[in-house]
Amino acid sequence: MLLYLEDLAVGQRFSSKTHQLDEEQVKAFARQFDPQPFHLDSSAADSSFFGQLVASGWHTASITMRLLVEGGLPLAGGIVGGGVEISWPQPTQPNALLHAESEILALSVARPRAPRGTVSVRCQTCDQTGAIVQVLKANLVVHRRPRPAQAGSA
Amino acid sequence: MLLYLEDLAVGQRFSSKTHQLDEEQVKAFARQFDPQPFHLDSSAADSSFFGQLVASGWHTASITMRLLVEGGLPLAGGIVGGGVEISWPQPTQPNALLHAESEILALSVARPRAPRGTVSVRCQTCDQTGAIVQVLKANLVVHRRPRPAQAGSA
Repeated sequence: MLLYLEDLAVGQRFSSKTHQLDEEQVKAFARQFDPQPFHLDSSAADSSFFGQLVASGWHTASITMRLLVEGGLPLAGGIVGGGVEISWPQPTQPNALLHAESEILALSVARPRAPRGTVSVRCQTCDQTGAIVQVLKANLVVHRRPRPAQAGSA
Repeated sequence: MLLYLEDLAVGQRFSSKTHQLDEEQVKAFARQFDPQPFHLDSSAADSSFFGQLVASGWHTASITMRLLVEGGLPLAGGIVGGGVEISWPQPTQPNALLHAESEILALSVARPRAPRGTVSVRCQTCDQTGAIVQVLKANLVVHRRPRPAQAGSA
């Protein structure tokens, strides 16, 4: 079921399905968008800042988006954001089994009859060990439930 | 030339090369990471919030990262960030010719002899019309120039 602003409450939580990462995905994303040795090449990564191959933070963010879109955050009208804050408390391991846990932090509307409001969400991306690999805070556009035609109107 | 902390100054600016986006790239990224109608399907997008096909914000962010890695922000040791703020003031059009303009906002080291410091960067991603499609603020790890062995030491 897709949720409208009226269906949401501060403190409400959502959990996504999982995504199994692997080394080939990590390297393929890196080749396309973040071609740095510690995302591309296991031996070069060993002597890098990270000491091993790790996923690009943008890869973690992109996988998280897919997890949110595919049921992790079931908003009517889709997931549309004008801005986000992201932190990556620790790197994502190439073999991580990722899932996203989201919580509604705030809800608002600019005007009483505005067709859309704003929802602030905090979303943690975790691996199979419970390690938090990303914290995303986002302000999203959320649609209000369409109003039924009023009785008596033509 | 790759730059160390000592080579950087507040107010210093960098400009990346360009990346030509197209509809096929927009849809391919969306299929993999952000499968929402307004990123996937031109006709469905026409009746969406955006009114037309637009790139995923995560696609814009990932392309920006590639532009920074490939010379747009030439840091020794690579581009490594623990956290970012992103805003997307307007959506990225499928035919956008993107480039990234970066400016150093702040530089710091935790201790006088720390091997690494932090650089705060503001990076605007712009299209060929001058429209700003993304503003990224990032705190990056930046390496200090390795110290030569001291005279007289064995």
